[in-house]
Amino acid sequence: MIKAVFSALLVLVAVTSTFGKYIPKTGKRIPQTLSRGWGDQLIWAQTYEEGLYWSRSRNKPLMVLFHLEDCPHSQAFKKVFSENNEIQKTLDEKFIVLNLVYETTDKHLSPDGQYVPRIIFVDPTMTVRADITGRYANRMYAYEPGDIKLLLTNMGKALKLLKSEL
Amino acid sequence: MIKAVFSALLVLVAVTSTFGKYIPKTGKRIPQTLSRGWGDQLIWAQTYEEGLYWSRSRNKPLMVLFHLEDCPHSQAFKKVFSENNEIQKTLDEKFIVLNLVYETTDKHLSPDGQYVPRIIFVDPTMTVRADITGRYANRMYAYEPGDIKLLLTNMGKALKLLKSEL
Repeated sequence: MIKAVFSALLVLVAVTSTFGKYIPKTGKRIPQTLSRGWGDQLIWAQTYEEGLYWSRSRNKPLMVLFHLEDCPHSQAFKKVFSENNEIQKTLDEKFIVLNLVYETTDKHLSPDGQYVPRIIFVDPTMTVRADITGRYANRMYAYEPGDIKLLLTNMGKALKLLKSEL
Repeated sequence: MIKAVFSALLVLVAVTSTFGKYIPKTGKRIPQTLSRGWGDQLIWAQTYEEGLYWSRSRNKPLMVLFHLEDCPHSQAFKKVFSENNEIQKTLDEKFIVLNLVYETTDKHLSPDGQYVPRIIFVDPTMTVRADITGRYANRMYAYEPGDIKLLLTNMGKALKLLKSEL
């Protein structure tokens, strides 16, 4: 009898340790998404190398969006950006998208500094489009919630691809 | 009356265009997670640069896991990996974790090639631990579902940090 209880216990322990999902001491977490709230329906590249690869191979411009989760300017711009259907649809159909909270080692992506939020377009020829700027002289690639139409105009500029070597 | 209907229509259009969330023509997508199923409760770095930064600043080893979504070997190993509580708990509490489907430009991360699945440990001193290997001579950093105990042993080795310059 004791042996049977012991066996049952062993099975129970085995089942628990195999199937009981890990939960952190601090409580269950919501899985992080690659979109980070900038457009859950978009297919986001994970890294700059991956974004460049998809941009070249699909002949679509790459939009790189630098932001920080705890930056109120990023949050405010994210709300407008993620809720704008024209932005979302155009990005989904005509762009490769990448959002980063950590800077890359490529200095071309910070032509005038590493502030956030900051949007840099890259042509499929792998040329950073430093000519596509926002409206602030001291942070040329920054956008605020009121600049969403300017961003759409700039997306249009990015879609006019530089001459590619075909 | 016509004016009122027109106004109501305008409001309706405005509300729809503002609040109607973008849905791709091909149908609604499930948002991509940074974990990609390798542990939804872990906090994943997005890029190698980010992983190195957290490894150094928190003095924890970094585990870099290369895989592919459509690779059956990666899938089989992922199932065992994500369901193993000891692996998940140890990674959560003592490691910085990064999973990549696209190779980096750093050749140190592919000491004997770019196959998947492949696990490389990096010390907080930013030294790739090429000495921590699996059991296959031709793919030294590959793991199969049956190798989960060996992976735990190797995680233990990675936790014995190299001498840091304090």
